[in-house]
Amino acid sequence: MEFVRNAWYVAGWSKEIDAELRRFTILDEHIVMFRKSDGSVVALEDRCPHRLLPLSKGKRIGDTVQCGYHGLTFDCSGKCVRVPGQSNLPASAYVEAFPIVEKNDIVWIWMGDKDKANADDVFDMPEFYDPSWHAHQGEALHLKSNYLNVAENLVDPAHVSFVHPTTLGSAASENVPVHVVTEGKAIVAWRWIRDAEPVGFFKKFGGFSGNVDRWHYYYLYTPCTAVIDFGSAPVEDQIAEDERDKGVRIFALHFMTPVTRNYTIDRWMHLRNRAVGDEEASAAMDAMFRIAFNEDKEILEAVQAEEERPLKRRPIRIAIDKGPMVYRKRITELLEKERTHDIASDPTPAFIYHD
Amino acid sequence: MEFVRNAWYVAGWSKEIDAELRRFTILDEHIVMFRKSDGSVVALEDRCPHRLLPLSKGKRIGDTVQCGYHGLTFDCSGKCVRVPGQSNLPASAYVEAFPIVEKNDIVWIWMGDKDKANADDVFDMPEFYDPSWHAHQGEALHLKSNYLNVAENLVDPAHVSFVHPTTLGSAASENVPVHVVTEGKAIVAWRWIRDAEPVGFFKKFGGFSGNVDRWHYYYLYTPCTAVIDFGSAPVEDQIAEDERDKGVRIFALHFMTPVTRNYTIDRWMHLRNRAVGDEEASAAMDAMFRIAFNEDKEILEAVQAEEERPLKRRPIRIAIDKGPMVYRKRITELLEKERTHDIASDPTPAFIYHD
Amino acid sequence: MEFVRNAWYVAGWSKEIDAELRRFTILDEHIVMFRKSDGSVVALEDRCPHRLLPLSKGKRIGDTVQCGYHGLTFDCSGKCVRVPGQSNLPASAYVEAFPIVEKNDIVWIWMGDKDKANADDVFDMPEFYDPSWHAHQGEALHLKSNYLNVAENLVDPAHVSFVHPTTLGSAASENVPVHVVTEGKAIVAWRWIRDAEPVGFFKKFGGFSGNVDRWHYYYLYTPCTAVIDFGSAPVEDQIAEDERDKGVRIFALHFMTPVTRNYTIDRWMHLRNRAVGDEEASAAMDAMFRIAFNEDKEILEAVQAEEERPLKRRPIRIAIDKGPMVYRKRITELLEKERTHDIASDPTPAFIYHD
Repeated sequence: MEFVRNAWYVAGWSKEIDAELRRFTILDEHIVMFRKSDGSVVALEDRCPHRLLPLSKGKRIGDTVQCGYHGLTFDCSGKCVRVPGQSNLPASAYVEAFPIVEKNDIVWIWMGDKDKANADDVFDMPEFYDPSWHAHQGEALHLKSNYLNVAENLVDPAHVSFVHPTTLGSAASENVPVHVVTEGKAIVAWRWIRDAEPVGFFKKFGGFSGNVDRWHYYYLYTPCTAVIDFGSAPVEDQIAEDERDKGVRIFALHFMTPVTRNYTIDRWMHLRNRAVGDEEASAAMDAMFRIAFNEDKEILEAVQAEEERPLKRRPIRIAIDKGPMVYRKRITELLEKERTHDIASDPTPAFIYHD
Repeated sequence: MEFVRNAWYVAGWSKEIDAELRRFTILDEHIVMFRKSDGSVVALEDRCPHRLLPLSKGKRIGDTVQCGYHGLTFDCSGKCVRVPGQSNLPASAYVEAFPIVEKNDIVWIWMGDKDKANADDVFDMPEFYDPSWHAHQGEALHLKSNYLNVAENLVDPAHVSFVHPTTLGSAASENVPVHVVTEGKAIVAWRWIRDAEPVGFFKKFGGFSGNVDRWHYYYLYTPCTAVIDFGSAPVEDQIAEDERDKGVRIFALHFMTPVTRNYTIDRWMHLRNRAVGDEEASAAMDAMFRIAFNEDKEILEAVQAEEERPLKRRPIRIAIDKGPMVYRKRITELLEKERTHDIASDPTPAFIYHD
Repeated sequence: MEFVRNAWYVAGWSKEIDAELRRFTILDEHIVMFRKSDGSVVALEDRCPHRLLPLSKGKRIGDTVQCGYHGLTFDCSGKCVRVPGQSNLPASAYVEAFPIVEKNDIVWIWMGDKDKANADDVFDMPEFYDPSWHAHQGEALHLKSNYLNVAENLVDPAHVSFVHPTTLGSAASENVPVHVVTEGKAIVAWRWIRDAEPVGFFKKFGGFSGNVDRWHYYYLYTPCTAVIDFGSAPVEDQIAEDERDKGVRIFALHFMTPVTRNYTIDRWMHLRNRAVGDEEASAAMDAMFRIAFNEDKEILEAVQAEEERPLKRRPIRIAIDKGPMVYRKRITELLEKERTHDIASDPTPAFIYHD
């Protein structure tokens, strides 16, 4: 499986990375990460160029990393600064270093062409900085499924009625059509279910006494970030589509890290406009998210297992698949773009015709 | 590994299948089976044509099956009767349905060309309906070995002396020659051991005080059903070959289900002309069969493991191999027949020669 | 992976082989070994030529081995002496037999061209027979790593400072250059560290009060035997390089058995010129060796795991690699020699030129 490389991926929550050398696997590559003495995060290729021992099996000497086999030592830029037993340092003795950005307690890594890494492209939302919103990091869901399957699920409001009937969805929405639009880098799939009983999640956290209008907006940013804007408001408030802040509104964020071709970590967290600062509410919500996301996990791992078996005929696509289809198309285009060199802008014409 | 498809295979004992959706793997295909409201057994391809989720992960809605991912719903013929979010039902939205016959508390499935499925071809024996015989279902032996190895073992009286010396055979028979004949669909390998001490099984269940004449008739019906007719009678009775009902006679039945290319389930049971209605005797016999069949399992799994390693030279065949060799030849012919189209009966000649 | 076949490999310590049929895997082949009635060791191909059942699943009948499936019986030369059910014994009914030499309580096997097996080529050392030396068999270290990686480690004094800093090495030697010479079949890598604190091993066993001169001589005999001559002597003794017997001197012997392409058994033992006959000292040394060799195991298994992943660029070689590089070159030459036929000595010229 090829991966889109020119993109920021989540390497971990900030709290996962400390002074210790730790191995992470991202896009099927092994990376050793640690915080150097100034607190910033370093990410290096986790393989000594000599006998291939993972550097994560070595040890830190100040802000350098010493290989555990023969002591070759590398600085934070990946340059070799010592080869025991000899004084010269061959230019080929290096490990790759990866650009890192840390923001909102999340560590992002760039696995592609270093010239194209731009810290401004890292995902962000104004609600992270708005005191009327509460941000809470959840957990890391490990799925034996490729990231495309996981991402599809995150631009697919239709599955909620069937996979999460007691938490995030209900039978009331089974036949409500899904709208899909693209907004810049995001694919947005959404629907409103008007005048229905609150779903499990909002029965528990919404404090509603009667029917509600509820919404699901799935924003999927290629390749691997999803924001699910969902919420509810009392029917009598008759809120408009752009007045969602008036209701109980939650952003569930999913940061997918493709680990290997058939393994993905989905780090999930949420932002909410209620119960600000209330960590008991955070824990209770995590408990309900955990149930729901494990329902997804069971489905997505079973789908992966079937995809690895021979296809007997081509799968069908149906009306609700528009979001996933746009997503797959965008990924294919990004891969094609990275796989080839664009020479269309070459100022020299290929030939000049003289008649 | 190719499998013979135009044949009835045992999918399970009747008691293994109830109202729940359950996955079975047969000829390396996943099948979901359940009993519908009228008690009859339904077998469908266990993969939704949309996103490939196994239907066994979904739920029953009456006599239909609803996929657990997006709610596509299929009736017992495999036809799609609902696609949530749209009103049209594309013709390509179906799952395969497999013919089923249930007889003698055994569920048979047809994995091949549906036009060729004929319920009259399902294995049967008159003793199932004869009150002087007792039928008793045993267990399901799971073997990490391909069905050809398992089947060979069931048309091979010679192994009994060496693999089952304390239960079904004894050293007395080591050099007794094996006769092999074919009777219609059956390959029959048999031998009599005259005037010898009873083997362990008949010491326990035969009630003999002196030497016996004993017989082993192995009937192997291609591809996957075996009947082992074995028994003993006192030497002084001097019974002829066709008078076996006069002795203590047991039919051990083996129904092999090829699960994958290297995994087979052997469901075994027996019919006997003694201790009719005596369930204690049934349990005691099961205990002895269990010991014997686990002896086969150890051998057959070790053979499979060796077959998966490189061959250093071609294996040899010996005199006692006639039954297995006829069996392998028949399987090869059946596969060849299914792999090709027979056009010999085409009434239009390919060309007419005019001189 | 190809293996050098024309060589003696250690099949096991003498104590591992008794009258029972036991399976060993050597050069990715299964061998059944046992002691026959005269106490000598027999090694046969562990696969019946009939249905491939491992003979180790059968049983001994005197000094013959009877297959557990159909009773084919083989003598210690591998010849078939019985096929139940028939009187003729086909010439193709045999198993391969392997030359064995037992010496110094070690069982050696020859996996190559039998004509080239010469018992005089089996590894030996005069210290085995010298009463002022004590020989002690240690254990069998199982490594999920190919034998080349394990062997390299045994001609590489430089890793000791980094892999075994508390037992066999110390930081004092990190930059001491390694000398490499070849002596007949051995590659010798060595260095002296003069006037340094004793390393952990000699702190414990040497009884030194001040600084020592210490040495490491790694003798690697292709393909799979290593002798590590290491020791220490008080600085004030000022011993010369050829006076090592005056110090506390230990030969650590490693016999590598390639099991499969990525699995190696390293049977290790030592000879020493101190504490002769003291089995408590032996046990204490084993305890320290066990710690050190498990440090190697962790490194070598991690290297193997990396080697099985795609290479992103060619590994580098450094000054300390001379021993391993000579070793790899010799193995390549041996493999090339075994892979081809040498016809240079053919007495008939290919053609005679007449002008």
